[in-house]
Amino acid sequence: MGEGVAIASHTEGRRGRTMRVAEAWISAAVTVAGPTEVRGPLGAAFDVPLRDDLLGERSWERAEWRMGQRAVGLLAQRLGVAITDFDLMLAGDLTNQITASTFAARELDIPFLGTFTACATFVEALGLAALLCDGGYAHLICVAVTSHHHVVERQYRFPTELGNQRPPCAQWTATGAAAFAVRAGAGEHPLARIEGFTPGRVIDYRITDPFDMGSAMAPAAADTLTAHLEDMGRQPGEYGALYTGDLGRVGVPICEELLRDRGIDVRLHDCGIELYDPGHQDVHAGGSGTACSALVFGSSVLPRLTQDWSAVCLVGTGALHSPTTYQQRESIPAVAHAISVCRPDLPKGGA
Amino acid sequence: MGEGVAIASHTEGRRGRTMRVAEAWISAAVTVAGPTEVRGPLGAAFDVPLRDDLLGERSWERAEWRMGQRAVGLLAQRLGVAITDFDLMLAGDLTNQITASTFAARELDIPFLGTFTACATFVEALGLAALLCDGGYAHLICVAVTSHHHVVERQYRFPTELGNQRPPCAQWTATGAAAFAVRAGAGEHPLARIEGFTPGRVIDYRITDPFDMGSAMAPAAADTLTAHLEDMGRQPGEYGALYTGDLGRVGVPICEELLRDRGIDVRLHDCGIELYDPGHQDVHAGGSGTACSALVFGSSVLPRLTQDWSAVCLVGTGALHSPTTYQQRESIPAVAHAISVCRPDLPKGGA
Repeated sequence: MGEGVAIASHTEGRRGRTMRVAEAWISAAVTVAGPTEVRGPLGAAFDVPLRDDLLGERSWERAEWRMGQRAVGLLAQRLGVAITDFDLMLAGDLTNQITASTFAARELDIPFLGTFTACATFVEALGLAALLCDGGYAHLICVAVTSHHHVVERQYRFPTELGNQRPPCAQWTATGAAAFAVRAGAGEHPLARIEGFTPGRVIDYRITDPFDMGSAMAPAAADTLTAHLEDMGRQPGEYGALYTGDLGRVGVPICEELLRDRGIDVRLHDCGIELYDPGHQDVHAGGSGTACSALVFGSSVLPRLTQDWSAVCLVGTGALHSPTTYQQRESIPAVAHAISVCRPDLPKGGA
Repeated sequence: MGEGVAIASHTEGRRGRTMRVAEAWISAAVTVAGPTEVRGPLGAAFDVPLRDDLLGERSWERAEWRMGQRAVGLLAQRLGVAITDFDLMLAGDLTNQITASTFAARELDIPFLGTFTACATFVEALGLAALLCDGGYAHLICVAVTSHHHVVERQYRFPTELGNQRPPCAQWTATGAAAFAVRAGAGEHPLARIEGFTPGRVIDYRITDPFDMGSAMAPAAADTLTAHLEDMGRQPGEYGALYTGDLGRVGVPICEELLRDRGIDVRLHDCGIELYDPGHQDVHAGGSGTACSALVFGSSVLPRLTQDWSAVCLVGTGALHSPTTYQQRESIPAVAHAISVCRPDLPKGGA
């Protein structure tokens, strides 16, 4: 167990690690987006566009869990069920002790399991929800994630009021919440069927700059996507799009190069890049935050899945450091989880 | 969605929320315990008794993830497998962004999913592992939790060097790590079979004192245990013992009274109480921390299951606050998850 790890050793001689899913559907999605996100290119597509990132609360922290509650409440309303009809809530966020999720949950009255792999939390929770529905342990699960720009910046880096200058490789933590209903049956108007879930390994390339998370996360994304494609027996071209969570403008080219080294030639989409308009929004390398991939997935990817694409793969990416670890001069480990979803009318086994 | 919640409304008119498990076994357990824990009544039962809570590292934080790695390494050794033979690692701890778990995982090369519900994390991860094995998604899962007294005290409350006085209701965060192998088949020498898992709801009784977690967690424990017994169709007397995670000397009598109000008359065991010797160890109301229930379960409960008892229920309990939430004068929500395990030779359906 030496400190250094190389990707090569990760992909040789392992059996598949993708968990195949047959009977789990995404039956509804709700996105609640902050003011900056609403001014981005997906602004018109969010279900709840916020004009105020405090939501009338006394702290950003309270605003974050209120956003989560609104997303879950609207999700139940869309499905025509009571909130307590969810068998389980799988949720997570970036706050210490994931309190945005637990404080949201204390007024929702749903059995709660907390998940955390930083910005890969959304795909972790979605994958677990798919397995629990597919396995017959739950009928209807609520997956919910939140992040809040000001909450995260002051916790991980500096209070935003300080106006610290950020390097060009820095990413912008998204403000928003998203909730998804995962169901054991197709139900009435399913949005997508979940096909497979690949939990990722924690990989550390010894990046130490907490403002350069794209470089830290790219190797994990390449590792997991390679395994996912291999296990699913698919070529990248069989997907309408391959999305990464939030590698941003720095991480995406690194990940594409690592994939090319393994013979996988692909142009990645990235939720962090698509959430904002680089011409008019000063977000540097792109968006990040637990809600980032969930906002783009719910507002843009799922609708295009129905219209344009037959299948999509989303690789959630997470940088697994904390202020304590980088103040103690530790490097930044990262993880990525992959999930494949397809149009609900496609026959199982096809793409 | 008012701010106040009452237990009464939680238990009326809900369908069962326990997930039944048929094919998941605990096939090995490893406990690594800190010096204070080794001086307690279970000292001789731990697999790795530590004399130094720094493990020769430069920080307590590094010592915590090194403990986790040692537990997982020894677990694989006991099973006679390579660490990479685990299909998945489910882990969590109390550090911000669960970095004790993620930093341990970066050198283990196992697909990793992070779990968090504070001190209930162990039961959450064990329950999810049971479902994923039972559902056929994994053959062998490693469940690992850690906590470190000095890491947690300085993060949640005060650096221990300050020597702050603590009130009698305060609990002592345990230093230790524990790892458990959950397997889809019984294997050669199984320790226990997992029968059912009940994820709990987040319940907030408006306790605001972060030194009184027993009071904050007792209502959640009563709620989940009531649901678990009802769903499993069992009387308390059908279990050799009913354990709570870490309610301590303050929380246990409150929980017992809440259960009596619902007609459930039971004497609870508590891992937090059994980990230390109140006569000689100044731990106030008892132990706590993510590793607390896992250390007692692995070193004391599982062995007694084979010798004395046919079945045991463990209700993991977690206080879901953070320093930020209590500095912002929020109350302390809590959650409890229940799991039933039985002797591996018992026929399924019996207890």
